[in-house]
Amino acid sequence: MLPFARVTIIGLGLIGSSLARAIRETMPTVRVTGYDADAGVREIARAIDLADDVTDTAGASVTDADLVVLCVPVRAMGAAATEIAEDLPADAIISDVGSCKADVLAQLNAALPGRRVVPAHPVAGTENSGPEAGFASLFQGRWCIVTPPADADPVAVERVSELWRRVGADVETMDPAHHDLVLAVTSHLPHLIAYTIVGTASDLEDVTQSEVIKYSAGGFRDFTRIAASDPTMWRDVFLANKDAVLEMLQRFSEDLSALQRAIRWNDGDALFNLFTRTRAIRRSIIEQGQDNPKPDFGRRH
Amino acid sequence: MLPFARVTIIGLGLIGSSLARAIRETMPTVRVTGYDADAGVREIARAIDLADDVTDTAGASVTDADLVVLCVPVRAMGAAATEIAEDLPADAIISDVGSCKADVLAQLNAALPGRRVVPAHPVAGTENSGPEAGFASLFQGRWCIVTPPADADPVAVERVSELWRRVGADVETMDPAHHDLVLAVTSHLPHLIAYTIVGTASDLEDVTQSEVIKYSAGGFRDFTRIAASDPTMWRDVFLANKDAVLEMLQRFSEDLSALQRAIRWNDGDALFNLFTRTRAIRRSIIEQGQDNPKPDFGRRH
Repeated sequence: MLPFARVTIIGLGLIGSSLARAIRETMPTVRVTGYDADAGVREIARAIDLADDVTDTAGASVTDADLVVLCVPVRAMGAAATEIAEDLPADAIISDVGSCKADVLAQLNAALPGRRVVPAHPVAGTENSGPEAGFASLFQGRWCIVTPPADADPVAVERVSELWRRVGADVETMDPAHHDLVLAVTSHLPHLIAYTIVGTASDLEDVTQSEVIKYSAGGFRDFTRIAASDPTMWRDVFLANKDAVLEMLQRFSEDLSALQRAIRWNDGDALFNLFTRTRAIRRSIIEQGQDNPKPDFGRRH
Repeated sequence: MLPFARVTIIGLGLIGSSLARAIRETMPTVRVTGYDADAGVREIARAIDLADDVTDTAGASVTDADLVVLCVPVRAMGAAATEIAEDLPADAIISDVGSCKADVLAQLNAALPGRRVVPAHPVAGTENSGPEAGFASLFQGRWCIVTPPADADPVAVERVSELWRRVGADVETMDPAHHDLVLAVTSHLPHLIAYTIVGTASDLEDVTQSEVIKYSAGGFRDFTRIAASDPTMWRDVFLANKDAVLEMLQRFSEDLSALQRAIRWNDGDALFNLFTRTRAIRRSIIEQGQDNPKPDFGRRH
């Protein structure tokens, strides 16, 4: 049985538009309604036939929904929920796709008290943004972490989980606070560091920007991919998951200082030991199907 | 006219074995001789027919060479050069493929005084190591930086440059010290940071290693690729290019502290401005053909 009959997606960027495409491909009888606060995005969504209907107000998009998925930047979740509160059917389930869960859960609970809220986070994405960047297979073989509040309705949790399984994801349930800690290290810290190094590289006086670009194949270009991700989304993530991000950042800085000291004092053994240890993690990621096993991600021109 | 007739490659890892393959593919009449200090590697090189001849001593590999390319870790260059000094023909040109040039040039000049030394650095690689990891097209569309000493023979510089052009690289000439600064930011610092974050992630108490691996698609997995690179090679790079690496590391740490402060004080504008700026660099790297324009490096499973 299909978990839902009428799904509304609010926010038609990379994730929202991928979810719309994935639902229509894997569950063609589900009616998909879309809304985006940006009129230009709504126009594109209509032109590329992203949903059965794209409405001009948030309220109109949810009137007959049995699931509403908020796909907006994490600090905009509360406002998006407030906007639909009046028109939302009493039994509808509310979910989202945000990268931080404790803060989003608090926003949704405040905006929609007593409603069936089941937050979720598909751990998938690309560096591209907007309705045209999405594609139906984005979630295939990726994990989706569902983070229900302690008092959540188990039926609602199962239906949200089933939706994500249907679009190809493996589903895991997690406490919101633990989710935020895990993602702080596997996603938020890497993005923060990538943004930083790309900024550092573009601010040098003795090395030109054109040299940085030309010789980026030495390693730098890998960092530029995630530093090209959506600025609004990531600004919100760092502020909404501040405590966990600062904690991971502090640990990273300590480890970096230790490595800096090892270089300064020619401690080759310390360097060699760390560099040997890190190879094993790469192997596990490939074994578990979370990356392309071909050298250089299989990218050739 | 071919730039060389008899090329000897010392060190048959990823770069050495790729160069051997590329020369045999693009210049089939050139005689390629190989040597590696590791008997097991020599055996594999013979089994996969990497060169016309694989010798059992370094000296025997160079007796009739007109070019010798040292493809060993950067702090092993001096010893490798000393090992061939006696058998090296007087007119042979010596080159290398190391990622640091000032230190390597000093080692080669000390080991081979008065010889025709023309260091070079092909900015290309993968995370894999060893003679079987190499492939002929590795250098195609990549840059090779030639860093001749001030008093170098222009004919020798041109012949080394021509060799790299023949195997598909674009050649640029640079002062060794400037090379080391450019590569410190485009290659050495990214590797150092990738090694650090992978180490940090594997040392957490509250997040398990299996969680880090499972949810790595959030950004972390990009870093693990370069943190899987050869440990000996990279230990040597950081020690041999210590000053430039420490300088870049210092700048990076300052920038990271500024970002940390912006997060702590909820300065969303500072975050947004940096994140917008960094997108432009990604675009340039793609426009200049130094990375795959497809989202997510084009990797799908």
